[in-house]
Amino acid sequence: MDLNSPKVSRIIDEWIEEDIGKGDLTSSAITKNKGKAHWIAKEEGIFCGVEIIKTIFKKIDEKIEYNFSINDGEKFLKNQKLLELYGPSKSLLASERLTLNICMHLSGISTYTKNIVNFLKGTNIQLADTRKTTPGLRIFEKYAFKCGGGVNHRMGLYDAAMIKENHIAWSDNLNNAVKKIRLNTPFTTHIIIEAEDIKQAKDAVLAGADSVLLDEFNPEFLKKGIKELRDLSSKRTKSTKNKLIIEVSGINPRDISKYLIDGVDLISTSSSITKSNWIDLSMRYIN
Amino acid sequence: MDLNSPKVSRIIDEWIEEDIGKGDLTSSAITKNKGKAHWIAKEEGIFCGVEIIKTIFKKIDEKIEYNFSINDGEKFLKNQKLLELYGPSKSLLASERLTLNICMHLSGISTYTKNIVNFLKGTNIQLADTRKTTPGLRIFEKYAFKCGGGVNHRMGLYDAAMIKENHIAWSDNLNNAVKKIRLNTPFTTHIIIEAEDIKQAKDAVLAGADSVLLDEFNPEFLKKGIKELRDLSSKRTKSTKNKLIIEVSGINPRDISKYLIDGVDLISTSSSITKSNWIDLSMRYIN
Amino acid sequence: MDLNSPKVSRIIDEWIEEDIGKGDLTSSAITKNKGKAHWIAKEEGIFCGVEIIKTIFKKIDEKIEYNFSINDGEKFLKNQKLLELYGPSKSLLASERLTLNICMHLSGISTYTKNIVNFLKGTNIQLADTRKTTPGLRIFEKYAFKCGGGVNHRMGLYDAAMIKENHIAWSDNLNNAVKKIRLNTPFTTHIIIEAEDIKQAKDAVLAGADSVLLDEFNPEFLKKGIKELRDLSSKRTKSTKNKLIIEVSGINPRDISKYLIDGVDLISTSSSITKSNWIDLSMRYIN
Amino acid sequence: MDLNSPKVSRIIDEWIEEDIGKGDLTSSAITKNKGKAHWIAKEEGIFCGVEIIKTIFKKIDEKIEYNFSINDGEKFLKNQKLLELYGPSKSLLASERLTLNICMHLSGISTYTKNIVNFLKGTNIQLADTRKTTPGLRIFEKYAFKCGGGVNHRMGLYDAAMIKENHIAWSDNLNNAVKKIRLNTPFTTHIIIEAEDIKQAKDAVLAGADSVLLDEFNPEFLKKGIKELRDLSSKRTKSTKNKLIIEVSGINPRDISKYLIDGVDLISTSSSITKSNWIDLSMRYIN
Amino acid sequence: MDLNSPKVSRIIDEWIEEDIGKGDLTSSAITKNKGKAHWIAKEEGIFCGVEIIKTIFKKIDEKIEYNFSINDGEKFLKNQKLLELYGPSKSLLASERLTLNICMHLSGISTYTKNIVNFLKGTNIQLADTRKTTPGLRIFEKYAFKCGGGVNHRMGLYDAAMIKENHIAWSDNLNNAVKKIRLNTPFTTHIIIEAEDIKQAKDAVLAGADSVLLDEFNPEFLKKGIKELRDLSSKRTKSTKNKLIIEVSGINPRDISKYLIDGVDLISTSSSITKSNWIDLSMRYIN
Amino acid sequence: MDLNSPKVSRIIDEWIEEDIGKGDLTSSAITKNKGKAHWIAKEEGIFCGVEIIKTIFKKIDEKIEYNFSINDGEKFLKNQKLLELYGPSKSLLASERLTLNICMHLSGISTYTKNIVNFLKGTNIQLADTRKTTPGLRIFEKYAFKCGGGVNHRMGLYDAAMIKENHIAWSDNLNNAVKKIRLNTPFTTHIIIEAEDIKQAKDAVLAGADSVLLDEFNPEFLKKGIKELRDLSSKRTKSTKNKLIIEVSGINPRDISKYLIDGVDLISTSSSITKSNWIDLSMRYIN
Repeated sequence: MDLNSPKVSRIIDEWIEEDIGKGDLTSSAITKNKGKAHWIAKEEGIFCGVEIIKTIFKKIDEKIEYNFSINDGEKFLKNQKLLELYGPSKSLLASERLTLNICMHLSGISTYTKNIVNFLKGTNIQLADTRKTTPGLRIFEKYAFKCGGGVNHRMGLYDAAMIKENHIAWSDNLNNAVKKIRLNTPFTTHIIIEAEDIKQAKDAVLAGADSVLLDEFNPEFLKKGIKELRDLSSKRTKSTKNKLIIEVSGINPRDISKYLIDGVDLISTSSSITKSNWIDLSMRYIN
Repeated sequence: MDLNSPKVSRIIDEWIEEDIGKGDLTSSAITKNKGKAHWIAKEEGIFCGVEIIKTIFKKIDEKIEYNFSINDGEKFLKNQKLLELYGPSKSLLASERLTLNICMHLSGISTYTKNIVNFLKGTNIQLADTRKTTPGLRIFEKYAFKCGGGVNHRMGLYDAAMIKENHIAWSDNLNNAVKKIRLNTPFTTHIIIEAEDIKQAKDAVLAGADSVLLDEFNPEFLKKGIKELRDLSSKRTKSTKNKLIIEVSGINPRDISKYLIDGVDLISTSSSITKSNWIDLSMRYIN
Repeated sequence: MDLNSPKVSRIIDEWIEEDIGKGDLTSSAITKNKGKAHWIAKEEGIFCGVEIIKTIFKKIDEKIEYNFSINDGEKFLKNQKLLELYGPSKSLLASERLTLNICMHLSGISTYTKNIVNFLKGTNIQLADTRKTTPGLRIFEKYAFKCGGGVNHRMGLYDAAMIKENHIAWSDNLNNAVKKIRLNTPFTTHIIIEAEDIKQAKDAVLAGADSVLLDEFNPEFLKKGIKELRDLSSKRTKSTKNKLIIEVSGINPRDISKYLIDGVDLISTSSSITKSNWIDLSMRYIN
Repeated sequence: MDLNSPKVSRIIDEWIEEDIGKGDLTSSAITKNKGKAHWIAKEEGIFCGVEIIKTIFKKIDEKIEYNFSINDGEKFLKNQKLLELYGPSKSLLASERLTLNICMHLSGISTYTKNIVNFLKGTNIQLADTRKTTPGLRIFEKYAFKCGGGVNHRMGLYDAAMIKENHIAWSDNLNNAVKKIRLNTPFTTHIIIEAEDIKQAKDAVLAGADSVLLDEFNPEFLKKGIKELRDLSSKRTKSTKNKLIIEVSGINPRDISKYLIDGVDLISTSSSITKSNWIDLSMRYIN
Repeated sequence: MDLNSPKVSRIIDEWIEEDIGKGDLTSSAITKNKGKAHWIAKEEGIFCGVEIIKTIFKKIDEKIEYNFSINDGEKFLKNQKLLELYGPSKSLLASERLTLNICMHLSGISTYTKNIVNFLKGTNIQLADTRKTTPGLRIFEKYAFKCGGGVNHRMGLYDAAMIKENHIAWSDNLNNAVKKIRLNTPFTTHIIIEAEDIKQAKDAVLAGADSVLLDEFNPEFLKKGIKELRDLSSKRTKSTKNKLIIEVSGINPRDISKYLIDGVDLISTSSSITKSNWIDLSMRYIN
Repeated sequence: MDLNSPKVSRIIDEWIEEDIGKGDLTSSAITKNKGKAHWIAKEEGIFCGVEIIKTIFKKIDEKIEYNFSINDGEKFLKNQKLLELYGPSKSLLASERLTLNICMHLSGISTYTKNIVNFLKGTNIQLADTRKTTPGLRIFEKYAFKCGGGVNHRMGLYDAAMIKENHIAWSDNLNNAVKKIRLNTPFTTHIIIEAEDIKQAKDAVLAGADSVLLDEFNPEFLKKGIKELRDLSSKRTKSTKNKLIIEVSGINPRDISKYLIDGVDLISTSSSITKSNWIDLSMRYIN
């Protein structure tokens, strides 16, 4: 992901305007020219935000100097020092809230993700995110998910096709739906078909899905179903089509250990976004 | 807050581009012209998002018709129907994720807030938010906080002054800091001074603060301190200055009942943003 | 006010496009590579615009070097040299009009303001501006007003509440209006109530206004009214509410000396914007 | 000028954000649903702003109904009713200041311009504006100048060439400067050459200027110079080049009657912008 | 592709500003209120632009009525009437050039594409476009390519990976390059590897490419190579990986008949963009 | 033309987003830190794009170093090296397509233009462009036209008036149309009148056109007509108006030698835009 693009630059401009707007009313109280500060973790977690924070500092005041002692995706402990700052006192104070807000939010996502990813160790299963992201922050939240050890699903409706239950209900039939998408989208388009039972999943394989998404299966059905799908898929692969990716969704993260089933490629979850809390970090000033 | 401003309109345009970008690759699968759907709550909560959702629907397709059976700030139960939709099938599918994402996020904030506000019933204490909000979403998240029964703190650095520990450390002294702010900001500016102990709080009152923010006091010290501050303030109020607003912060929401102390005006918390989860809602299609 | 924000940067981009657009048609006539120029005042006044002018020069050509011999808010005399310039000849010519336009306009406002502020010397009365500003230029014009010695009123409808005659007419009643605003706005909100006679002014005090704005009172009534308001307010201040700010408006600047009445905190005027002329400055080239 | 362009629409969005920003804090006081108002002139003048005001009303609230009893460029008297309004009370109050601000500013320009134009009646001389306009408002201020009976000079550096004293000083020589501009600009480019004495003016004619701008000539010299230029020009016109437009600038509007000299085509003035005051208009609410 | 997105709307705003800017200088000549016109083809071709043209008309003047007698992707003959228009005369004249410009350009691309696609009839080979598109117009030009019967390749660097010669040279090795991309991109990412000879192509298959792009092969080598790749791929498909897509590029469209080789899936070409001419259309006014 | 304006900067930002969007998926494959490349011409032509390419490189990565061995407007031969590059390998690969796309497109226009301009050598006739340009690229394409030796016609509807057949049909009459334009546009406005036969052309001269555009005349009629127009114009020039510019349009570039008629000032053509092909350039990496 390109966190240095002109678009990201404009998004960050909007964040600055949101907080500082027509100016920091308190800044006139400050007489000390330059100051020092550092960031301290108030709980442990996985860090996310180095490049974004640097961009915010540069935009608010090019004279702020920073020295990170951590990289994105790395673990930090409670009370660990993460960052040293030196620069114009007014600018340190003006940039404090925005830099912490984004970093605490993203590190919360990375940390939550890592906790789930740790359950997958020793398997071939990867953890994938979803399109359930906070509006306006998808590029950042997907980046944080990756910093936590996950892999990214499609970015939006525009870079992969996913045929869900209602797409099927509102199409002629599944085979035609797949044909139409192949015809009308870039030939590199990956087609995922969501299935709510094993019958639908098999239809998806026969219709030529690149991935099948098995939603809200219980572990028993899933185990049985995966086997049938792999058998069916291995026939398909010999003759006409590609190896099937099998994605599983609708799992409560607490139950994940029941789903570490052979043949599953991906478990996708929105919980890193919808259930994570911010990691508590603070800026301490050195006087 | 004005959720119909040109600025909000542009923010929502960005959200749509984020998800739909150069087009929905799956839409070519759909042959049914018009469809119906409704929104169902998968857990109980406080609703937030009516106007925002309407704007998204209008922008994606003016032909989507909607009928809300709930208003912002109202409670809904698990399995309650919240919204009926009728319109072009492709547009219903294209708008599903974005409308749910923002509504689930904001309703999560409203619900979390309401749960705390309920503890304040029967007191004169109000719950206030902070500047810890997700970058780019402050206007929406502050709106959700209000829908949950809270009151809004300042919107940003530009609409009230707050002198924190380090502002004081980097000023000549507190009295001068207050004087400079009075001189250099609109005369309507409200000045809040953060205090970490009762000595600082008294200095703040003497320096002419409009509000004093007592951060991370334990309930014992707080009770004692409030009394001293009210005494000091009542002297001030008689002679020269205004009635003091006393704000308390740094409280874990679980401990809030210990802080329902007479003389406290506001308890401020960022937990509605940093610790709330999304409320689970889903769009169901009627075929 | 933050004249270095991303927003101000974009506003100045628009100004440059307005004047230079697709390019300076005359620039191809220029063969001399580098040139010198300075700015001369053609009449005396108060200067305003240093940071803004620097930004324009940087945006048009980073190679323009400038050396200001005056700061914002300082007085200059007729024929005084204000600024020396050295840089690419084409760029000096292309930036001339825009830099002069904004500086002449703002210095006109600062100068006009200073002339009124001079009448207030020796009193405790301050001069405040209003929301009567040229659309698109409020942040700049309010800055110029401050450079002329004034204090800023609210920036817009969003950072203080002002209940005018018709707000009252279209409300249930004044007391309810105040209550609703307190309930629905950030708790830091300053509430001003406009009064057209002394009866209304007293109602405003009783309703809990932070400021009362006395509009178009003649000096006799004003003197009498102020006394009554201060009496009423001192009672209020003792028991429940804050010290009243008394603002006076609707005064022709020529009559200001009649209004220097004890107990007035602010005189607000739009005349610095609506009646000031540009101060005449010129750029002279040194060949 | 196209006051309905996408660009003007975006400029007006910025004006709305400037005043209303995150919302009108006072609006929650209003309980009456719909209201009426009209605009009254508090002094006489020339009106300017109908289309712009309509656009602002539409953007703030499509439900505001308006009925203008005056057109742009028409004269109004003191106490004349100019506009009737009916619509949501909150929206009438929110739109009041912005609509009045732009209309009072522009009508001030139209009125000032008309007063000068009246001196030119019975002559063939036209009044032209300049590039001395308030940054960001040129399209509006030039429109107001036209509503006052003036003609517009070039819009910016991009739609006509004007060779001033220092362009000449920094060129090889005047003849080459003209040649280079002809070569490097659209062939439709009009070239104006500024002259500070009659010698320079003649050189300009010989170099092929489309217009000559005579700056700060006294009436005696001007009368004599015009005759010489017309003689020279009539020779030129016969053989090679076009009829000369003679523009006169640097005149104090008070002295304009001395400059109504035969052979002058245009008198240009920035005074409509730099010396005009806003015309006083007010919105009155009908309860 | 979504030609009704907020982004496309803003792009079209820019086009209008580019041509009309501060206003159409000629429009003041027009006195007739309403007029009629139609579009006539001056040569035969494939039409492209209906939705885009409608959007432009709506933006310039909502009162323009249009009636298209052709759809995108349909063939038209010389002298065929394509569109009838009725509306404000000034607006018909103002919109003429922009609507024709985009339609002539895009129809040129559709027509050129169709001419190549016609050679592929009776084969299973599809024609694909490339990233060689005019900056700023990719979404439109790719749409026109599809209207001509082609299929779209990836939209940009962000929606599929393509490993070219130099990506390989600057990687550790091909196998690692593929692994890194799989690890660092959305799991739906399609990986294409470009090969300049048959050895490289086989390596690509073994490394797990989803597509192999054979660049500038002569027909003999290509025929032989395809067979070898299909053999290799059929082994791969049986055991581990997906069916290979074979894309051929670097073909002069004139030689295309030599490349209609069994086993080729796609021929990609930039010539529709780089070598097509605009189709000549004209707007005729009916007086 | 000003290729360094804030507007051009924003256009180039859009181009970068169009190609790179949320990030280059292939870049993770690259392990080599820095790389070298150069640009080679695959066919001869006239170069156009130096400043634009520099801006793109700077925006994508400030660490890219470039060394051009050619300037805009200069001829290059097949196989000539045009540019050397050194910088971060990932950034060289990410910037390749966009820089080549714009340069190949513009150089195609410059080259095509130069080929026509070569026919005009030894005459006084200049080649002018038209408003038939690719939407969004006019400033760049007009710049390329000039690099090919042409002169620019008006930039858009806003910087010169052109009265075409239908403007006349929808006006009162030609004389009134001209009068209205003179009255309603900046006095520097150049008025062109299009004529379809010699009668119309004479009317245009008599109405006071600055230019007459003779559209689709055959050479015989043109020769005869030019003489009559020059006679008529020389009378006009003596008494009241300016020397006529005679522009000829509607010529197939292949027939241009038949139109090199004495008295023609300009031949205008859209063929440089509508019929030119991109010039083939390639970036070669040095490993």
